Order: sequence, then C-alpha cells, then structure tokens
Amino acid sequence: MSKIYVAIIGAGGVGKAFISQLASYSSRNPSLNITPILISRSKTALISPDYSGLSLSNWASDLASATTPPPAFPTETLKFLSTAPGPVILVDNTSDEAIASSYPQFLSAGIHIVTPNKKGFSSSIDLWNGIYSAAKNGDNANGKGGFVFHEASVGAGLPVLSTLKELVETGDKIRKIEGVFSGTMSFLFNSFAPLSGDNGGKGFAECVVQAKELGYTEPDPRDDLNGLDVARKLTILARLSGLAVPSPTSFPIQSLIPSELETAKSAEEFLEGLPRFDGEMTKKKTDAEASGSVIRYVGSLNVERKEVKVGLESFAKSSSIAGLQGSDNIISFYTERYGANPLIVQGAGAGAEVTAMGVLGDLIKVVQRL
Amino acid sequence: MSKIYVAIIGAGGVGKAFISQLASYSSRNPSLNITPILISRSKTALISPDYSGLSLSNWASDLASATTPPPAFPTETLKFLSTAPGPVILVDNTSDEAIASSYPQFLSAGIHIVTPNKKGFSSSIDLWNGIYSAAKNGDNANGKGGFVFHEASVGAGLPVLSTLKELVETGDKIRKIEGVFSGTMSFLFNSFAPLSGDNGGKGFAECVVQAKELGYTEPDPRDDLNGLDVARKLTILARLSGLAVPSPTSFPIQSLIPSELETAKSAEEFLEGLPRFDGEMTKKKTDAEASGSVIRYVGSLNVERKEVKVGLESFAKSSSIAGLQGSDNIISFYTERYGANPLIVQGAGAGAEVTAMGVLGDLIKVVQRL
Repeated sequence: MSKIYVAIIGAGGVGKAFISQLASYSSRNPSLNITPILISRSKTALISPDYSGLSLSNWASDLASATTPPPAFPTETLKFLSTAPGPVILVDNTSDEAIASSYPQFLSAGIHIVTPNKKGFSSSIDLWNGIYSAAKNGDNANGKGGFVFHEASVGAGLPVLSTLKELVETGDKIRKIEGVFSGTMSFLFNSFAPLSGDNGGKGFAECVVQAKELGYTEPDPRDDLNGLDVARKLTILARLSGLAVPSPTSFPIQSLIPSELETAKSAEEFLEGLPRFDGEMTKKKTDAEASGSVIRYVGSLNVERKEVKVGLESFAKSSSIAGLQGSDNIISFYTERYGANPLIVQGAGAGAEVTAMGVLGDLIKVVQRL
Repeated sequence: MSKIYVAIIGAGGVGKAFISQLASYSSRNPSLNITPILISRSKTALISPDYSGLSLSNWASDLASATTPPPAFPTETLKFLSTAPGPVILVDNTSDEAIASSYPQFLSAGIHIVTPNKKGFSSSIDLWNGIYSAAKNGDNANGKGGFVFHEASVGAGLPVLSTLKELVETGDKIRKIEGVFSGTMSFLFNSFAPLSGDNGGKGFAECVVQAKELGYTEPDPRDDLNGLDVARKLTILARLSGLAVPSPTSFPIQSLIPSELETAKSAEEFLEGLPRFDGEMTKKKTDAEASGSVIRYVGSLNVERKEVKVGLESFAKSSSIAGLQGSDNIISFYTERYGANPLIVQGAGAGAEVTAMGVLGDLIKVVQRL
C-alpha cells in the first residue's frame, strides 16, 4: 500500500496523547505506511518537506528545540498538503475557530480531516454546510472531497456521533437526545449535589474552586459555567439529527455565571465574588431534594418539537442521570425503534487519552475507506 | 457507481424487518444501486438469475407464492453469488450453524457477509480463525477477501462490537467486560427480583411462564435458561478482546435448568416441573436482598485473568446492572484508559427492528468500504 500522510496541528494535552497513540498504532500496523509530515504548534513546527516522513520517537524534544515556524495557515499549509504524493489526513488537535473555518478548502482539495475541535461543526450553519458540501462523506461523495470525522467533538472517545449517525442512516427516527455532556459540569454537580445529599456543607463556589484545583475546569472556569461548551455539543447533535440549528447561541442556554459577575475582569475576581451567590444555588438544590431529586446541568434536544436547550434540571435520584459518577458523561437517545427505554452511552467524556482515542478512531475510519 | 448486489437468507422476524429497512435505505440512497438478487427461506426463494434485481415492494407476497426452491447451499449459492458482475453482500438473517460454517468459503470468494447469526463467531475457534483469515478486515486484507461484520450478534443494534473493536484498535487495554447480555434474562430477573423487592409474590416459574407468554423467551424457554445464548455472546467478546476461547462451553456457565429437569421431554413438561424448584431461586433472591442487593444473570470476562463466566450474581441496588429496566441489556467496558468508571452501553438488546438495524448498519459499513 502506498503511504498515508498525516499532518498534525496542535501538540498540547490531546495532541501529545494522540501522537503517542498514533506512533503505537503505526508500529502495530506497519503495512499502512503511516507517514507524519507535519507536527505544528503556534510558533514552531516539524516539517518533512520532501514527504519522507518525521520520526515519532523523539518528536516532543525535536519540537521543543525546533525553530522553524509552521507553514502559514491556510494557504501554505494547504499547498504543502495538497502536493503530497498520496492521501493526506489533517489532524486538527486545536480548538481554533480560524483553523476550523478553513476545513471546506482542505476537504475540497481532497484532504481528509479528523478532529476533536468543536468549532467547525458548532459555529454558523454556513460553515457546517460548507464542510459537508465539500466532504466525501457529505455531498461531495462522487467528487474528490476528503472525509471528515469529529467523533471526539462530543463525549471524547465515547461512541456518540457514530451511534447517532447509524441510527439516522438506518432510518430510525430520533425523538429526543438528553444527557450530561460536560465532564466539568458532571463533576461539579456530582460533588455539589451528590445522591447522598451530604456534600460536607460545601457551597457551590467552593465546589467550583475545588474542580478548578483538580484540573476539571478550563483555566478560567467561566468558560465552563457559561454553558457554551455544552451548547456547542448540542448544536452538533441537533444538526446530525436533522435540525438546522443556525448557531450555538440560537437556543436557550442557562449560564451559571450570575449576571452581577458578568463584568468581572478576571477569573480571580469572578471566583472571589461567586460565594455571594451560593444561597441561590443552595436553594435550587434544596428544592430538588424536597421532591427526592437532584439538580444536574444537562442539554436536551427534542427533534419533533425542534427544541434545543441547555441548563439546570431536576432528576429523580433513581434516574441514570442522577446516578452518574465522577466526571462521567451520559447520553440517552430516545428513538422510534428503541421506544420508551433509550439507547444510552455513558463514561468519561473528557481527558487527553480518551479524546485522543476518539481522534485516532476517526483516523482509522478514514484509513479503512481509502 | 456500479451496482451493489445483496443476497438475503432468512425471512423470519429479523429478515422481514431487515428487508423493509433495506428497501427504505435503498430508496433514500438511489445512487448506490442496491440490487437484491436473492431472498430465500428454507423451502422457497426469490431469485434474479440475470442479476437485474428483485423488486422489494411486494417481496413478502411474492415469496409466499413462490415455488422455486433456494439454490443449494453452499455450492450453488456460492456459484450464483460469485458470478455476479459486481460486489455482493450476503446477509445471513438465520441462526443456522451450517450456513455460518460456510462463511470462510464465501469470504475467500470476495463475498461480503453481514449477519446477526452468532454461530459463526461463537462456535469452534477453528471456524472463527477460518472466517478471520479469509476476511478482508481480517488477515486477507491484501487479497480479495470479503468484509465480515456481525454487530447484531451481541446486543442487537447497540454499538457493542464496534465499540470494543475501536478500543482494541486504538490500543486501549481491555481489563474486564461485564453485563446483562440477554433480553430474556433481563426481563426475567427484573420481574422476579425487582429493585422494589416486591414482585407481587410471583415465584420464578411463574415469571418464566409470563415471559414466554409475552414473547420474551424462545419457543422453548430452556434455550434461554441454559445460558448458552449468553455464553455465545461472551465467547465473541472474549475473542475480540484477544482471548482465544476454544468454544462457547469451555468456561463455567450456570444453567437455570434444574438438573432434575434436564431430561424433560418437552417445554411443557419442563414448565410443569419448574415450580417445584421455586424455593431454591427464592432463597437466592432473599439472601441477596438481606445485603441490599438483587440477583441478575450476567456474563463477564476478565482479560487479565483470562476468565470468562456466565451465571447469577448479586448486585448492589444502586448499581447500573441492578437498575436496568424491562428487557434492556447493559454492557460495561473496563479499560486502562477509562479507569475506574467503565464505558457503558445500554438499551434494548433484542427485537426484530433493532436487530435488523444492526445488520443494516453493517451493510452500510461494507458499502462505505467498497
């Protein structure tokens, strides 16, 4: 088999885990001739200008000492990749919207894309349409479009998008999708409002600080608490279910940032002010407990009613959503064929290793279709 | 695109649902040129000898009035299929071991196979090896082998095998797989030993009769109660996890057929005798309740210890397995990457529509790889 060229943008947590998994996959499958030709981060890059391939054995130290800037994006990168003497898979391990907005150009040039980056699929519907009209597994099936897969954009390595796609492709009717889509929100409410009811007297603000210290939140926890991450995931699920949601903010999203703190100038200032609002959140928790329930931060989409929403809801303590542990995600698909009891996928929905696994799984899907 | 030929063996519950879903898929995707050339049941068949294709609009009544016998299996069928002027997908919707034992021949001839039939993958390890050494997605990747997919052989349409394969292919280490793998056993124990503890005083035998009347068991409930169906599913999961289990009876299987009733000459005689053993099962249930648990019929495989087993176990009432509803299946994958909290897939694991969906999903996988 001829070589399969791989270009990797982003070498942070997920990128590192991905490259390590790719190196191992490549050595287990030598006949595939996986050939890395680009590993780039914002300022520097490793490039194999003659397409002979980069070694993955010392890539991290090689990149640390590299001085070559990455090829300009998109023009030079596109030129370099589309001149490769064989199929190219572009792995975008960033969360960069500018990179995502160039996917249509890369796909049109026959370059395949696998990515955990939500931006391309959850921003404007125009970008979504641009991507899927250029992709071979979209409207460009008979042209020279590249394949695009983004399993890890929802639920990391959990089989969420592949399951949804198969339900739709085989003709099932999606009625509702509901779940906990954020590891941060899962951890936060599992600690603030545990099934036992007793969290040791911690207020909501204290739980946020703890989650941040344990690495469960973004560096600025407001990026989790504003609900936009969950809204982006719902946007992707809605679009794959046939609802042409125009943007990730075109439906109700309950932000957990108190309006009085929206103008806080830093994460520190925000966290300092947050305890003043503990009373409100404690009331919500206590109200739920009075009816045998717990509060959880969920996203849901009702395809029949064309409704998408993200926010806090109460769930009976016996429900699957209430029983979730740690930072796990849970996604329930209610469909015509599955009837009253949904098809459920559950497990870690964040973390470098499981996210990288979702990306590598997508790369394998491309390889199997070459 | 040239035509994709499809041959369907078996037109019972799953077969009927599959053909209906295929007809609908085909009309949604006319460019694929899905061309059915054979629909057969034991005595009669619809055949398109010139490969021009059968109409799926009246297939059921056409088959009901058909007098043509099916082509002899395997020789004539193989000849007919391998002479087709394009790719052929053989859909085996039977549970016939004789058909399954011919898969290697069909795969070697480049014919693709999709099936919910467990027999090919859960009988002798020699047959398994024969299948996977002939298959293109096995050791015959560079030859002209056909693809083989059998998602619906475990958990019907639930993404069980695809998830396991992706975990393995991306280099995760499977530690343990545990779950409820039988809709019958799920229903039976959810009614006999519900979470509430109160089943209205029904003994185990009465629950079996009720499950049979509601259509949850095989015509002869002993075919469920002997545990072999679950053992076959565990055999498949074990082999995909890298344990070369020699046969579906090469590990401990707890049969729920009392030894005194093993010689019963009919299902009726068996069901008549069963109430005499209600006391034993009630004791197991009561013992579990005393420690806040319920009994469930589960299968598990521990890859590190190379242990596979099937039988009754107690589960804490707060566990996912105990909380299962109706006839749902639940499958928990414990892996290195997922750590303490497993990746869980849950939902209906039996029924014609969801089984057919698993088969059609596999057919789509083949189509995407052509």
